[in-house]
Amino acid sequence: MQDALRIDDPDDPRIAMFLNVRDRDLAGRGAGFIAEGEVVIRQLLQSRDFSARALLVAADRLATKSELLGGVPENVPVYAAAQEVMDRIVGFHIHRGLLAFGERVAEFRPEDLLVARPRLVLGLVGIGNHDNLGGIFRNAAAFGVEAMLLDDTCCDPLYRKALRVSVGAVLKVRHARAGSGADLVTRLVEAGYAPVGLSPQGRDDIGDIGTIDRPALVLGAEGPGLPPALLAQTRSVRIDMSGGFDSLNVATTSGIALHELRRALGAGAFNP
Amino acid sequence: MQDALRIDDPDDPRIAMFLNVRDRDLAGRGAGFIAEGEVVIRQLLQSRDFSARALLVAADRLATKSELLGGVPENVPVYAAAQEVMDRIVGFHIHRGLLAFGERVAEFRPEDLLVARPRLVLGLVGIGNHDNLGGIFRNAAAFGVEAMLLDDTCCDPLYRKALRVSVGAVLKVRHARAGSGADLVTRLVEAGYAPVGLSPQGRDDIGDIGTIDRPALVLGAEGPGLPPALLAQTRSVRIDMSGGFDSLNVATTSGIALHELRRALGAGAFNP
Repeated sequence: MQDALRIDDPDDPRIAMFLNVRDRDLAGRGAGFIAEGEVVIRQLLQSRDFSARALLVAADRLATKSELLGGVPENVPVYAAAQEVMDRIVGFHIHRGLLAFGERVAEFRPEDLLVARPRLVLGLVGIGNHDNLGGIFRNAAAFGVEAMLLDDTCCDPLYRKALRVSVGAVLKVRHARAGSGADLVTRLVEAGYAPVGLSPQGRDDIGDIGTIDRPALVLGAEGPGLPPALLAQTRSVRIDMSGGFDSLNVATTSGIALHELRRALGAGAFNP
Repeated sequence: MQDALRIDDPDDPRIAMFLNVRDRDLAGRGAGFIAEGEVVIRQLLQSRDFSARALLVAADRLATKSELLGGVPENVPVYAAAQEVMDRIVGFHIHRGLLAFGERVAEFRPEDLLVARPRLVLGLVGIGNHDNLGGIFRNAAAFGVEAMLLDDTCCDPLYRKALRVSVGAVLKVRHARAGSGADLVTRLVEAGYAPVGLSPQGRDDIGDIGTIDRPALVLGAEGPGLPPALLAQTRSVRIDMSGGFDSLNVATTSGIALHELRRALGAGAFNP
């Protein structure tokens, strides 16, 4: 493990990328993003498409986090600050004592992802809530989604809270922006995928979906759901529920639908 | 609709139950709880087991919320305060402008709920996170769970955040405390239910569960899951996932499992 570089001054220019994290969540930070906590940072260090530019660690965590920190490449500096200095840098109390600044190193277009013929694809239209987007990424990783397309109205999956809720799945599941919702569905169809649209008004129970060769699940926002014109371009399915209560959260919906689609692919699909 | 009672002084004793909401989230507020926002308050007003003792509304919302407020019983006062006064009462900015103070009016023991022979039962052991508990209640309502048992280590479903995340399902789905996890499983079995335990180490894929007459899904906490001794007393099932990623969130897990168990009950079970 490399030696940590000690930071005593919150204004030290070497750690400027960690200044005022919340303000810059809102203002944006260009190509970079903040990864919090061990689980997310572990995904960052393993990612093919993102890399860490620096870590900032509370000095009293250096010993307990030595295994993780041992995996940090030599050219990525590890800064250590007293918890109190760290909190002043960041602007609030970082109780996990562990942050990384990450950058995207590979940018994809939808066709770059679809050309590899991924087995299970997920398209998102209008997911504007960071918790929901993070939860959907988490489920996508759990069920082996190999490519995700996001329409232009989805929020940013690298936003700090989305990344945290995803437990780092945003850094693992390859994804690309795909223009409008209509563009997204068109690209799926042109690449040979069968779009499966989820809606409370869907025609078939998702449990009766049978076998589909190249399904692409398409989800809309909680509340409005997929616009009717888009839904009409998909095989529409529904999740049967008890009447008289609010619909499911969209992240939960994605978990149920991906569980079913994984089965629709046939046994052993992901255990080659 | 009754006339709203105007509050100008944050120290007015009539609205003392709304003072310093966050502090009292932590300290507890005896038998009462705070319900936030239209969706949750609507469930409170419809509940058989809970009732509103008072509402506090931002004065500029009275007109737009008139339909909801029209459903408030005559003996439940509606207090209206300027948003700025409301924020001072509560201790932070209430952007929905709508609060109720609720109380439980019916307390159940597990046997009170199970004697009615509910079709689908859910048992929770060690769910200590309010977001997860709220999410599980939301899914339980969506899939028609008719009774829930909570072991003594589950957190409080009436805690403000759990209630909000549940979109009011906590006020709809009947639930009872059931002692230890072992007590909980014993009560299910004695009442004629088949406990189905969910675990990544479960024996059967949950999709292969077949038909079960009186299933009771039993869920443990995210991370540790159900203790092995409890799991051994259940029919254990798993949700197959892609390898190499963190497990699903426990609320999402509950959604997938309830979706499957609803199907295991047979078509039309909930559409009598």
